[in-house]
Amino acid sequence: MALKLYGTAMSTCTSRVLTCFHEKSLDFELVPVDLFAGEHKQPPFLAKNPFGQIPALEDGDLTLFESRAITSYVAEKFKGTGYDLIRHENLKEAALVKVWTEVESHQYNPAIAPIVYQFLVAPLQGKSPDQSIIDASVEKLGKVLDIYEVRLTGTRYLAGDFYSLADLHHLPYTYYLMKTPAASVVNERPHVKAWWEDISSRPAFKKVAEGMKFGGK
Amino acid sequence: MALKLYGTAMSTCTSRVLTCFHEKSLDFELVPVDLFAGEHKQPPFLAKNPFGQIPALEDGDLTLFESRAITSYVAEKFKGTGYDLIRHENLKEAALVKVWTEVESHQYNPAIAPIVYQFLVAPLQGKSPDQSIIDASVEKLGKVLDIYEVRLTGTRYLAGDFYSLADLHHLPYTYYLMKTPAASVVNERPHVKAWWEDISSRPAFKKVAEGMKFGGK
Ligand SMILES: N[C@@H](CCC(=O)N[C@@H](CS)C(=O)NCC(=O)O)C(=O)O
Ligand SMILES: N[C@@H](CCC(=O)N[C@@H](CS)C(=O)NCC(=O)O)C(=O)O
Repeated sequence: MALKLYGTAMSTCTSRVLTCFHEKSLDFELVPVDLFAGEHKQPPFLAKNPFGQIPALEDGDLTLFESRAITSYVAEKFKGTGYDLIRHENLKEAALVKVWTEVESHQYNPAIAPIVYQFLVAPLQGKSPDQSIIDASVEKLGKVLDIYEVRLTGTRYLAGDFYSLADLHHLPYTYYLMKTPAASVVNERPHVKAWWEDISSRPAFKKVAEGMKFGGK
Repeated sequence: MALKLYGTAMSTCTSRVLTCFHEKSLDFELVPVDLFAGEHKQPPFLAKNPFGQIPALEDGDLTLFESRAITSYVAEKFKGTGYDLIRHENLKEAALVKVWTEVESHQYNPAIAPIVYQFLVAPLQGKSPDQSIIDASVEKLGKVLDIYEVRLTGTRYLAGDFYSLADLHHLPYTYYLMKTPAASVVNERPHVKAWWEDISSRPAFKKVAEGMKFGGK
């Protein structure tokens, strides 16, 4: 039975999982959830994810949510298929994948999410971007990327000289960031820029990015 | 060679890891880092964690940071020792541990951290707690706990009828929350309250809690 993902490619959290599916060369079905119609707050979807957020995954009788739990489950269950995203044969490398995956969750995501929200989501909701939120978040993201710049001087990817789930988790938000004036925060840091160009040109992500249209941008 | 943890028991992120060590009955050494003296922003510590935050772990020649990456590494490496925190023999249960671990990271932690900061950390820095931040965060935490309340009506712990890393990760912040007026957000929800009393009375955490003194409270 194919994996069933509930979500929409436009959503960063859904794209994170889709990219993982493509890296693993898995068959799956994407079941659209209409955020604009509020389908994610209706009982059928809430039964899959009580937090009312996309994506949710059905794998047979198992239902999962939280995009990073889904990618980590998929990378583990199908460790022998497609690209190995978690370095499952090397405990030390696997540990560094965990470290940089947590860095994305706790350092990178809280800084980048408000920028993308203000530039791309707020206008869809008829609000104008709040420049003070943008400025504070760009400063915060810059400090995180200063540390990435040093790290990526020593290794080609975040966890080491191998692409992993840790890099993959950064793709969707950074893709949208690069369409905003705040893209300079990446472009000004040569190793971060080279890393971004490398990871975003992987065929698995390029397929997903085709569906990432945000309010026509 | 024993595991070496750099941090201080007062810090929530350090306690998260210490609790994991005790559940796994591991030998370890806690190497104190003096936050008040700014030791975490000096080169020797920055070489362990470039983000300048505690804790950091040394296991032989491997250095890790981010508390949840450390617990997950330890729970995996020592899966045969002490209490099994990740249900490593059951893919489905292990997947639910991942889901609720991510819920702690992305739903619970962002709501609870500002409350503890305002009530307990701000006064140590000579600031008075910002009531509007507290109110907004308590409301946000209440919504998360409404979902926990329903979940815990069906299963004894978050990932199922077994204690896991997902529950453990909640301990340090909730322990401090319960010492503030915002404790009502837990106490008003009977299943959440019972879950809290259960997980916080495990011997592994009780040992750690003895060291969790915050500004004398
Ligand atoms: N931490 C969650 C976040 C999920 C999330 O925020 N999803 C967004 C779309 S990217 C959503 O459903 N937003 C609608 C809402 O929160 O009401 C994950 O990684 O899956
Ligand atoms: N996401 C990190 C957070 C670490 C963190 O915030 N540590 C605090 C102590 S609980 C710290 O070092 N604060 C000092 C600072 O950030 O300057 C983790 O889980 O390890």
